Amino acid sequence: MKTQGYAALKAGAPLVPFSFERRALRDNDVAMEILFCGVCHSDLHQARNDWGMGTYPMVPGHEIVGRVTDIGAGVTRYKAGDLVAVGCMVDSCQTCDQCRQGEEQFCREGMTPTYAGQDRITQETTQGGYSKHLVVREEFVLSVPETLELSKVAPLLCAGITTYSPLRTWGVGPGSRVAVVGLGGLGHMAVKLAAGMGATVTVIGRSAAKADDARELGADHYLISTDEQAMQQAYNSFDVIIDSIPVRHDVSVYMPLLDVDGTMVMVGQIGPIDEQNTFPMVFGRRRLAGSLIGGIKETQEMLDFCGRKNILPECEIINIDQINEAFERMERSDVRYRFVIDMASLSA
Amino acid sequence: MKTQGYAALKAGAPLVPFSFERRALRDNDVAMEILFCGVCHSDLHQARNDWGMGTYPMVPGHEIVGRVTDIGAGVTRYKAGDLVAVGCMVDSCQTCDQCRQGEEQFCREGMTPTYAGQDRITQETTQGGYSKHLVVREEFVLSVPETLELSKVAPLLCAGITTYSPLRTWGVGPGSRVAVVGLGGLGHMAVKLAAGMGATVTVIGRSAAKADDARELGADHYLISTDEQAMQQAYNSFDVIIDSIPVRHDVSVYMPLLDVDGTMVMVGQIGPIDEQNTFPMVFGRRRLAGSLIGGIKETQEMLDFCGRKNILPECEIINIDQINEAFERMERSDVRYRFVIDMASLSA
Repeated sequence: MKTQGYAALKAGAPLVPFSFERRALRDNDVAMEILFCGVCHSDLHQARNDWGMGTYPMVPGHEIVGRVTDIGAGVTRYKAGDLVAVGCMVDSCQTCDQCRQGEEQFCREGMTPTYAGQDRITQETTQGGYSKHLVVREEFVLSVPETLELSKVAPLLCAGITTYSPLRTWGVGPGSRVAVVGLGGLGHMAVKLAAGMGATVTVIGRSAAKADDARELGADHYLISTDEQAMQQAYNSFDVIIDSIPVRHDVSVYMPLLDVDGTMVMVGQIGPIDEQNTFPMVFGRRRLAGSLIGGIKETQEMLDFCGRKNILPECEIINIDQINEAFERMERSDVRYRFVIDMASLSA
Repeated sequence: MKTQGYAALKAGAPLVPFSFERRALRDNDVAMEILFCGVCHSDLHQARNDWGMGTYPMVPGHEIVGRVTDIGAGVTRYKAGDLVAVGCMVDSCQTCDQCRQGEEQFCREGMTPTYAGQDRITQETTQGGYSKHLVVREEFVLSVPETLELSKVAPLLCAGITTYSPLRTWGVGPGSRVAVVGLGGLGHMAVKLAAGMGATVTVIGRSAAKADDARELGADHYLISTDEQAMQQAYNSFDVIIDSIPVRHDVSVYMPLLDVDGTMVMVGQIGPIDEQNTFPMVFGRRRLAGSLIGGIKETQEMLDFCGRKNILPECEIINIDQINEAFERMERSDVRYRFVIDMASLSA
């Protein structure tokens, strides 16, 4: 099937209209018309090849919401007209221990990313959601609750699951004390989701500038990390800290805020962090961990949870021809809190 | 009670014979004659005030084995003649959540260290086990299995519990895959204890030099960290890594060896570690943690476990007048694997 999208034709180039083929339906494939696609900070990194994993032309986008247009002969879970979503993965081996546990993101053979990956059968490069149509095997298609405001659902597929998964892994629920560092696309979802789970939520910022926003998002408390006295008073007071800062920084500042056996989870920065001192880890059995999106089963659980609680990201809806400007604004952290492309703005 | 010991009269001074008072028995106190005391690397740090927490004169020593000589009026658990032990703590508040959970090392008011601490009642400086007699409240006295070879028991009280506790906290048992980095006083106990719990144990060293020793201690495998190919083959293959390296080093080398959800536990270095990259943490949900000795209940459990399994450290028994030489040898890592002072060498 011929389709239209926006692609980086080479590393670092601005995105431009791009015509390409989606594969013919396999037996277990679902075809969909894309209605909305979220703009993740990693799209920017990938379009510029910041991580050295890019392949070009590249159609970014892995926060995808659409409606089923056609299904393969063997598809049983979806039918034409269903509201569906696709996140960061479109395939995995489906047979290893991680896949069997529903942790496809840790597939022993490597999961297939939604774009800039290699199709497991044809080895063709996968292309993402900044486009009009998508074909994905049914096991990687999610069902979207019809009650949610559709234009805001897309960011749940990456920003949502990336913060939902660690909150679940580290047992957050009523009574949990959760702090969130970094109030961007990921961080603001962490606040909403943790609050939705019944946790007491504190946002930690460098100044008071985001205090009102944090409270509007559902935070109970706001802590200023440059206020040494306030920080010391907050020592030993969190069970989980979600660290969504997307650049190099010093985690040592936050570690003493964890209570005994508490965990700080890195979901933003993939790369070097500043040198740390093990003292707060040892004297408190504290832990530093990473977390990567979430499995398909957990992603569906997250969508259903958001459907029940009506939890949605704060979005700024843009047309596809504003994508390069959106990238520039993201670089300046000038977005509250996620851009979402209305794909109706792209003529088929 | 007047007693004799060896003390550092000021920071960095060699240890010399030292006469001092042990407190009169309180109702809940146990008095003991010290028979053996292990020499921990932290004794050296403290005697030199490397951590800035020293008070002088300082009688070091927190791996203490002895026999009860007298008990206070209210003591019910011990009687004269019992074989007992004391580790790194001699008191705590006994009422906070951590103390009630048997985690006195994380007491909210701060546990009282066996030496260079402050008695909770009199504020007197506590003095450690490089001495002839000791008085400790009964809640911090451990029972020593009579079957164990007494001269080797002392190091269990610090090196033993410091490695036993994380193995238990992170669920090591039959089938667990455990790696040990750093084969000193702590590391060699980690090997013996993990093997005793039924784990498959790998020692990781910088060269093949310690391979035979590792196998004699009970390791199943030996991995050379400078062999890049062997290291890559070992990626994703451990559930728990005990890192007992006592100096600044690069943990990034070892993180990819952990399987998904695996944990690397720092028990050696208390201080800075080299800058790390979060990539292996995020892509594998791996964790870095610290661990501090263990609670009293768990220490007794460890002693009983070692009694049943006849697990003991490798020791070199010295006389008290050899302590300064022993410190020097420890600095050169010239000990396999723990010095133990035979306190009979100290005339009362």
